[in-house]
Amino acid sequence: MISVMLLFLCLFQGSVQGRYLLSSKSRPSPDDAAHFARWLVSQSSWGVISTIASNLGGAPFGNVVSFSDGKPGKGKGIPYFYLTTLDPTASSALKDQRSSFTLSEYSIGTCGKTDPENPTCAKITLTGKLKVVDGKSSEAEYAQTALFSKHPEMKDWPKSHNFQIFKLDIDDIFMINWFGGPKPLTVDQYLHA
Amino acid sequence: MISVMLLFLCLFQGSVQGRYLLSSKSRPSPDDAAHFARWLVSQSSWGVISTIASNLGGAPFGNVVSFSDGKPGKGKGIPYFYLTTLDPTASSALKDQRSSFTLSEYSIGTCGKTDPENPTCAKITLTGKLKVVDGKSSEAEYAQTALFSKHPEMKDWPKSHNFQIFKLDIDDIFMINWFGGPKPLTVDQYLHA
Repeated sequence: MISVMLLFLCLFQGSVQGRYLLSSKSRPSPDDAAHFARWLVSQSSWGVISTIASNLGGAPFGNVVSFSDGKPGKGKGIPYFYLTTLDPTASSALKDQRSSFTLSEYSIGTCGKTDPENPTCAKITLTGKLKVVDGKSSEAEYAQTALFSKHPEMKDWPKSHNFQIFKLDIDDIFMINWFGGPKPLTVDQYLHA
Repeated sequence: MISVMLLFLCLFQGSVQGRYLLSSKSRPSPDDAAHFARWLVSQSSWGVISTIASNLGGAPFGNVVSFSDGKPGKGKGIPYFYLTTLDPTASSALKDQRSSFTLSEYSIGTCGKTDPENPTCAKITLTGKLKVVDGKSSEAEYAQTALFSKHPEMKDWPKSHNFQIFKLDIDDIFMINWFGGPKPLTVDQYLHA
């Protein structure tokens, strides 16, 4: 009986942060840059979008956001966001689309005790243009399903806040997942992995 | 015997991401903006620094970094970093100091199942100037102790990479930790909390 209770406690603790602590079994080899990058993006649920803040002297302004590139296990590599102009990121992007989106493998739980800045704990920055997705397009439908399946509470967020779907059109990929500097990886290789 | 093994498994799982899953007991009231912000910064071990990337058309470039604002429980609110110009962030900052540093409460484990973009899961962005700390100053000594106590492996990172201590001189604080938009909080209130 005590064993069962402890086992239950274990399982609960494993998801106490609102997501599963992933095993590293599905982690691609660091040498396979395209698949590794797609794995890292599809396993992540949040990151930091940086935009240019005209109200702060043109400073680069990072902001925590949730995202999704597709239903679990079916991501296409393009990050979609659910943003309101009540938050500075969306309003900045409407003035200047230049932006980047940054993720750490540390947040998905497969770095073990390795430091988040150690190159073997992967990180990726996708640089590009942050754009509104036409709300009546089939892409918006895909993106909404992608977002709501990974972030169920989004569907109940206040209608009055006018959340809109945004996407990052990727121009450049910076990924470090091992020693020796960023992995060479084109946007085309990434999207077709 | 099985109980003991399961208990051990529980404890191991609780720290499997290289840090403790914090209890929320020490979490200040969201109304107490200054103490909340200082708590969030001092409990965190990594975040995203954004700088201006001149090699990417002036795009805002976010990068995952480790940091420390002091020894555990003794932070002063100023984030210190251990960076090498082999990484683009440090070299960008030497050309243009404008930058921001962004943290999510989600990464310290006290948001439960709340979505990372939900305003009750706190986030903070410190905007300012990213500057090298004079390696011979007492501030550098303080910062190195702060960094190495929270990131023990840093002291063994390759000397040939010429890691230097950087700090963020904070000009502006953006924090959301509840409904109703960003909390009013001056840099002076934050630093003297």
